[in-house]
Order: sequence, then structure tokens, then C-alpha cells
Amino acid sequence: MATIEDVAKYAGLSRTTVSRVINNQPYVCDEKRERVFHAMQELGYVPNSSARRLRNQKTETIAIVLPRITNPFYSKLVEVMEKKASWWGYQVIICQTYHCAQKELHYLELLRKKQVDGLVMVAIQNEWTKVEEYIHAGPIVICNESIEEANTVIVGIDQQQAAYDATVHLIEQGCRRLAFISGEENSNLVQARYTGYMKALQEHHIPSMDDPIFHEAVDVESGQTILGKVVHMNNRIDGIFAGCDEVAAGIVYAAMKQGIRVPEDLAVVGFHNDTISRLMNPAITTIEVPIVEMAEKSIEQLIRSIEQPLRNKRESYQFAHTLLKRDSTNKRITVPM
Amino acid sequence: MATIEDVAKYAGLSRTTVSRVINNQPYVCDEKRERVFHAMQELGYVPNSSARRLRNQKTETIAIVLPRITNPFYSKLVEVMEKKASWWGYQVIICQTYHCAQKELHYLELLRKKQVDGLVMVAIQNEWTKVEEYIHAGPIVICNESIEEANTVIVGIDQQQAAYDATVHLIEQGCRRLAFISGEENSNLVQARYTGYMKALQEHHIPSMDDPIFHEAVDVESGQTILGKVVHMNNRIDGIFAGCDEVAAGIVYAAMKQGIRVPEDLAVVGFHNDTISRLMNPAITTIEVPIVEMAEKSIEQLIRSIEQPLRNKRESYQFAHTLLKRDSTNKRITVPM
Repeated sequence: MATIEDVAKYAGLSRTTVSRVINNQPYVCDEKRERVFHAMQELGYVPNSSARRLRNQKTETIAIVLPRITNPFYSKLVEVMEKKASWWGYQVIICQTYHCAQKELHYLELLRKKQVDGLVMVAIQNEWTKVEEYIHAGPIVICNESIEEANTVIVGIDQQQAAYDATVHLIEQGCRRLAFISGEENSNLVQARYTGYMKALQEHHIPSMDDPIFHEAVDVESGQTILGKVVHMNNRIDGIFAGCDEVAAGIVYAAMKQGIRVPEDLAVVGFHNDTISRLMNPAITTIEVPIVEMAEKSIEQLIRSIEQPLRNKRESYQFAHTLLKRDSTNKRITVPM
Repeated sequence: MATIEDVAKYAGLSRTTVSRVINNQPYVCDEKRERVFHAMQELGYVPNSSARRLRNQKTETIAIVLPRITNPFYSKLVEVMEKKASWWGYQVIICQTYHCAQKELHYLELLRKKQVDGLVMVAIQNEWTKVEEYIHAGPIVICNESIEEANTVIVGIDQQQAAYDATVHLIEQGCRRLAFISGEENSNLVQARYTGYMKALQEHHIPSMDDPIFHEAVDVESGQTILGKVVHMNNRIDGIFAGCDEVAAGIVYAAMKQGIRVPEDLAVVGFHNDTISRLMNPAITTIEVPIVEMAEKSIEQLIRSIEQPLRNKRESYQFAHTLLKRDSTNKRITVPM
């Protein structure tokens, strides 16, 4: 592979001159510049990117921190983010935490080690005070989490209102024994949703049916496990608000296998409008989230913060969600409220 | 943020000494080394990673080139690859080509520009001769593609045999008017599968029902479109071998909506054993691919090639596939062959 010395020799110029041209420094006449570019092209010389990036102190790389890429909601967010970042000339590193706070800190270190120029967090496992320590090392955009005290860019929807809407819909369909299913009980996102869910129940004087297993649900398999539990409850649940469509699909699938009718015996609402929610039979009522808009806004704001640093300022972008009513809740009755 | 000068001042040593310690160079006594480490820790100083990586000529970053992350097969491969790479201390950049050969070359340039140490290609859009030019810049591992002339590490399954097995199964279930559905007609992978499919048909003296639309299928929506076309064919197809489960799910879903019975009127086989193939009603017969083993082997071999360069040598790792027979092909008849 050609070196900078080869280029200098081929162009008949000093190494210093070649270096000046590559680094776009002054005091080199146009004729010499041309000779250097010609030599680089002829020899197939490509300037070492680490060196160039070191000079301008940028890596042209960003990181996306998320629980796991196989969740369809996260993979769709990452698809759009990578596309947008690529358009701006940035590479995207993916960082899977598997809901582990320690792993999240490990990835945040990429900012401190200058391996990335900025970072999007699509979920947060640590306390905000811990994450905040990294903001001085580079911009962090939060997407789909709601953290009141975060002094940075936050992009998302009103999680509390979305959960409220879903719960009121279940109540309107006649459900009176409801359960709230979530992934990680202590996350800000789950807390916001739980508040919305409880608000709807309290307004209608309905108690919540709770069980520890309802707070460990992150995929299809855990949805199936929960249905197995629900079957054996004395005062059986008749309505579920699940935190994601994968869990909802697992519940609907297992219900079908167990002979429990959806929605007649059990109505189910999911979240995110993944493809699977539309293809299941019955199709699953869900909260549609404007993923493309959220992902694009997150990348735009991150790159703006990288290129024109202006940190420690809260900026909130809230998008509208939609409750998509489908057959998994369609009991074809209207209960007087 | 603390600088190297701050560390020198705090430690009461020269900048040169601090620099020597950070770069792990000789001629610094243990006592001074300790003082530097202590100062670094007290001030929260982190050596600039670009600088360190420049010195050892490694980025500790690899790239995965794939069509799009939202395809569940690719997102599962990437999940396992990132987990494995992270364990080895490598970051993973994802590169979505959307089946565009030009975009693929753009990402291959990451190798030449030294932004990554190596690269896994999960699909290939360009001729091998074009890709081969990049091998001198860094190792490339090919995962799930079958390229005979490739002088590098290839990890995959026997695509031809898998397609043959699926097609023979459809014939054994009584299908006589078969179609082959694929994403990109000109890829090596599709060619290999088509050979297996045609071999099965020829052995049983059955003609193939072909249509240009059958070669543009990459997602659920294109599966639905194809079913719309199939409905209006005079000599209606009764068996489909689809290149991925998303397409197969789209076909099964649209068939249900149109009142076409699966498998009685139309039997369907998918590929990859995505979650969706198991949850559909009827569940979809599919080819199970050992994704975890393939992903882990690809990363292992890539990192081995990065750390002990030994290039331009073909090494092939072929894993076993399994035909999972489910209800989408279960006509409950056995046709004498």
C-alpha cells in the first residue's frame, strides 16, 4: 500500500509539502497541490483516517445505546437513525446493553475516550446523575425516554397519555380486571406509563390486578409465560396493557393455544405498532409511535450539537401517538361509563 | 476536562514523562509511573483514544455490511455479532446498503480509510472482483453468501440443499404448480437456492410457474402484493418457496384475507425461522438456520484475521440447516412419488 513517502517521491516534492496538502494547510501553491493530488490518485494513496480525524478532533462516528437490536421497535429506530446519520457522513456504532446499567456505562465511556462524537440513548438504565457526568465529554440525545431533570435534548411521545388512552379504551370495551405488563419496573418510561394507567383506573374506580411476573416481560416468550400464569388466577384478568407488541403477541398466541378467546375472554393492547401486531389473528390493538420522525429528529439534533456545541440545555421534542383500535380489543359492545 | 499538562502539573513531572507513561514507553521509574497514574485518576484524565489507536494502528472497530437492520434475520445476526465483538473489546458499526451496490462500496471504503479493522459482509451486491480489491486493506468475512471464487473466510449453510429440501417437501405434500419467490435475482445466494429448487422440480418432472414480480420480494408488503397477483392467475399456484419468513408471512396473511386456504389451496415455505413464522396462524414451515453459531464463527474468524493477519486464503465453515415442518404445508396427505 502506498505511503506518504511514495506520494512525495512520485510528485517530486517534500514529505512536508505532501502533508500540508493532505491536511489542507496554507503556503502551498496550486500547481504543487495538483501534483500531490495526481500522485495520490495514481498510487491509490488514501490518507489515514485516524490521523485526519485526530487532527480535527472528530471521529465522524456516533453511538446508539439500546437494550437489544432484535426488538422490532429498536431495530426500526436504528434503521432510520443509521440512514439519516449516513446521509450526514457519520458512521453508527450500535451498543446493546441488555438492560444492564454497567454495560451502559461501558458504552458511555466511548464519549470520554473520544471514540464517538456523540451518542443517542434509546433507553436508560442508570440514574440521570450518572449519565449526566458524560455530557461534558460530548452531546447525548435521549430518544423515547422521559427524564424530567435531563438538561439535554429529549425526543419522544407522551408515554403517560399513551398508557392512559390504552387503559381507557380497555375500560370502554368492558374490561374490569386489568393488568399492566412492563419490562423494567424502575425505568422512567415504565413509571410514566404506570402513572397514566393508574390514572385511568382511578377515574373509573377500578382496582389493578398486580403480580411480580408482570414486570419482567420483554419478548414473545415472556408474553407466553404471563398467559400461562393468568390462566390459573382465581379472579381472572380480562384486559391487559402490554408495554410492547412482542409481549402482546406472545399473550395472544398463548391464549389461542389455551382456548382463551381474544378479545371476548381477554382483551389485549400492545405498543409500537410492530408488523407482528398487524399480522396476528386477531390483529392487536396498539399505540402507534412516529418512529421515523423521532429517529430523524434525534439524529438531526445530535449532529447539530456535535457541529455547533451548545450543551447542558434542555430541549424537548414531543410527537403525537395514535391508538390503533383492532380486533384484540373489539368486544363489539359499548359499556355506559 | 483535564489535559496532559494538568496531569504533568499535578504529578510534578514533565509532559514528556507523562506522555511516556501513557504510551507505555521505557525509561520511566516505577515511582514516577505511579505518580502519573495517581494524577490521571485524581483528575479524571482519559488518554485520547484516537491518538492511542493511531499509535497501535488499530481502531478496535469492525463493520457489518447488510441490506437493512429491520429484517429479523439480519437483526438477529447483528445482535449476536455485536455481543461477541463487544466481549472481545471491539465496537460494531452497522452499514445498511438497501441492496445498493454503490452504497456497499462506500462502506467498504471504511477499510481503506482505516476507520475499521475488519468487516463482515452479510450480503453482497457487487461482483466479487470488486469486493476483492478491499481485502488488501483489511480482512473481510462473508456470512450467509456463497461465492465460489472468494479467497477469504466464508461462513454459511448449503443454500442449494436447503432450497432443494423445501421444494421436495412441497412436492411431497401434493403441490404441482410451484413458484420460487426471491429478493434479488442476481445474487449468488438466490442463484444457489434457485439451482436447488429447479433440481427438485426436474427430478419430479414438474414445471416452474414464473413471473417477474416473484423476484422483487423482500418484506411483508411484497408478500401481500404477490398473493394479490397469484389470486388472478389462470392456472393458480398451489405451492410457494419464499426466500424469507417476512415474505411468507405476508403471503399467508393476504391469503387469509382473500379466503384462500393455507395449506389446502396454497402451501407456503419460508426461510430463517423468524419469530413471526411461529406465531402466524397457520404457523409457517421454514428453514431453520443456526444464526448464533454462524454469527459467532464470523466474528471469531474476523478478529483472528485482524490480530494475526493471514489473508487471501479461502476458509469455509458450513453449518447444518433444518426444515421445520409446520401447518402452512401440512396437507395431511402423502402423495406417492
